[in-house]
Amino acid sequence: MHNPTTLYLDNAATTPLRPEARAAMEPFLDAAFANASSLYASAREARKGIEVAREQLAAAVGARPEEVVFTGSGTEADNLALKGAAWHAREQGRDGIVIGVTEHEAVAKTAEWLGRVGFRVRVVGVDGNGVVSLDELREAVDEKTAIVSVMWANNEVGTVQPVAEIADIARSARALFHSDAVQALRFLPVDSSRADLTAFSAHKVGGPKGVGALIVRRGTKIQPLIHGGGQERGLRSSTYNVAGIIGFGAAVGAVAAERSSVVPSVEMLRDRLQAELCARITGVHVNGAGAPRLAGHVNVSIEGIEGEPLILLLDGAGVAASSGSACQSGSTEPSHVLVAMGVSRPLATSALRLTLGTDTTEADVDRAVSAVADAVVRLRR
Amino acid sequence: MHNPTTLYLDNAATTPLRPEARAAMEPFLDAAFANASSLYASAREARKGIEVAREQLAAAVGARPEEVVFTGSGTEADNLALKGAAWHAREQGRDGIVIGVTEHEAVAKTAEWLGRVGFRVRVVGVDGNGVVSLDELREAVDEKTAIVSVMWANNEVGTVQPVAEIADIARSARALFHSDAVQALRFLPVDSSRADLTAFSAHKVGGPKGVGALIVRRGTKIQPLIHGGGQERGLRSSTYNVAGIIGFGAAVGAVAAERSSVVPSVEMLRDRLQAELCARITGVHVNGAGAPRLAGHVNVSIEGIEGEPLILLLDGAGVAASSGSACQSGSTEPSHVLVAMGVSRPLATSALRLTLGTDTTEADVDRAVSAVADAVVRLRR
Repeated sequence: MHNPTTLYLDNAATTPLRPEARAAMEPFLDAAFANASSLYASAREARKGIEVAREQLAAAVGARPEEVVFTGSGTEADNLALKGAAWHAREQGRDGIVIGVTEHEAVAKTAEWLGRVGFRVRVVGVDGNGVVSLDELREAVDEKTAIVSVMWANNEVGTVQPVAEIADIARSARALFHSDAVQALRFLPVDSSRADLTAFSAHKVGGPKGVGALIVRRGTKIQPLIHGGGQERGLRSSTYNVAGIIGFGAAVGAVAAERSSVVPSVEMLRDRLQAELCARITGVHVNGAGAPRLAGHVNVSIEGIEGEPLILLLDGAGVAASSGSACQSGSTEPSHVLVAMGVSRPLATSALRLTLGTDTTEADVDRAVSAVADAVVRLRR
Repeated sequence: MHNPTTLYLDNAATTPLRPEARAAMEPFLDAAFANASSLYASAREARKGIEVAREQLAAAVGARPEEVVFTGSGTEADNLALKGAAWHAREQGRDGIVIGVTEHEAVAKTAEWLGRVGFRVRVVGVDGNGVVSLDELREAVDEKTAIVSVMWANNEVGTVQPVAEIADIARSARALFHSDAVQALRFLPVDSSRADLTAFSAHKVGGPKGVGALIVRRGTKIQPLIHGGGQERGLRSSTYNVAGIIGFGAAVGAVAAERSSVVPSVEMLRDRLQAELCARITGVHVNGAGAPRLAGHVNVSIEGIEGEPLILLLDGAGVAASSGSACQSGSTEPSHVLVAMGVSRPLATSALRLTLGTDTTEADVDRAVSAVADAVVRLRR
């Protein structure tokens, strides 16, 4: 069980289920259990709930409801975007895939696999803050490029990408532009109409795990990743995860409604956390603070410290933190994001990511700083 | 909301969430929300819960825990099996895919797509009861066959396939054998060790929607469908749907434990329902009763009646029923399963599927018979 005295500072890995989401899901875990594709009354109720969720997500991300394709995860949405676009494009004679070097594995590993089955994959570098190089991108995109994939904001350091400029470069070559906005949505107003394809995940915004979505902008042609009964206009077959989708819609609606009022205080606490870490501990290097960044992200490298022992000591002190992406936990490799930003290998392996939530308090920040400082003292002995 | 006075006889479409599953999920929807891939204590709890579920599913289907790959649905499991096997096999010079004609769309549409991207697809016929023709199968399989896919039991009529014989035929050509056991698991002891790949779905056995599994037998090589963070030994990347997986495990454990004691009474009620429908209504033809069949399935064609208006009248009378697969609801095409069994087009469009649950009573059966009889009288007027 989650210890209630634990200080949870890993909101980039996942977020607690919001009460609005939980309440919306409740009836559909219980009496309203019908298959949404059936014909009778209870199935119509389930369909209605799904359509409400579709409208909630669409409204929150500047999309039309009919552009929403619900999936089983953000990772699946990224796979659907890249593979779906690639397979369609191949039939049109396009075989190029261009991604940023700091993409999440959901994009990076998918592109790698597409490379193995015959697509040309180009990986574009970033500057010291993790911002993708627009010059390199311009150079990488050509008339055979099928899709450009650059994330809306990075999961490890929080760097926000110049999405509008990237979209322009992709469009100038008539390539599709996909953006993984999984990490961005909680604290950033994501306007998915800037991209052709945009991926989201419910559990990063207070929704349940096991649900994601891909926004497929009107007119964008992709092939399905999962074939079957033809749900989601044929783009994602599977019995509807009714409760999960409805929880996603409720969570995203709540997040969008509160965003502008909570972001300033989250940023203030984040800045305090970052400043205190630098003040209390010697040899702290902040990663990615020189570019626009998500409100809740602090990523620091601490000289002479290994990420994993630090995380385990913090765990012992009741602080849930991360050395980078949750998906890469346990790996001894340095973060590919930090390495791409030019962080030295020793500093890249000494990274600590603390990601705040809307429930993080000043006292939490002070507790976290003390816990990190104590752990660093112990580890440096 | 699901009307509590509704008589639910569409258990093949989906089943209510079992209390054991609901109780097991509860903490993981609430305080224990961690990302199972993280390093701290609450994440380890989530991982432990997932491993318990993995053992529960493995024990219920004759598999080893390490052979379980959790997915987002049964449909995804079928797609992973076919596409994953096909992509791997192509590298070995095998390009043949052989499926039964009565497969669920999750297999049929996937095979169709693989056919469009260069695989040779052969579709094998069935007899009048929906049993796949072993002679045709033998003839269709050759030394270039990558995978044979025949379902364990059919979702529309409940026909159980001769899985052991089919496996032998596939293996004699060193092809993989995949079986969609989504519909079978509730009332049939499925021994997945007979196949190389076996697909399951949580919500068909009292678990939550949005979770499935593919059993990948030791030594069976397939490629992933969803790339990313490397979960499930790299075969299915995505943040773990912790609560969903844990609910699946609890449900399947409960279903396996009660199966032998509930099946005889379900079968008895099913036989009563079928006999009464034939006795009370003229022109009733039972589909698929001449072969081994799942305990809860009744599929009848009623002369002169269209399936959809019948379902809607039954809905008005508070009886939830189906004209075939939920995934095909609303379609005006006759069932491809019944057509393949040689049922005439008019009779195939007049199909009614009633599927019993463990909570169905004798009074429910009598109520269903009266409701169908009344509806038929009205429709025949």
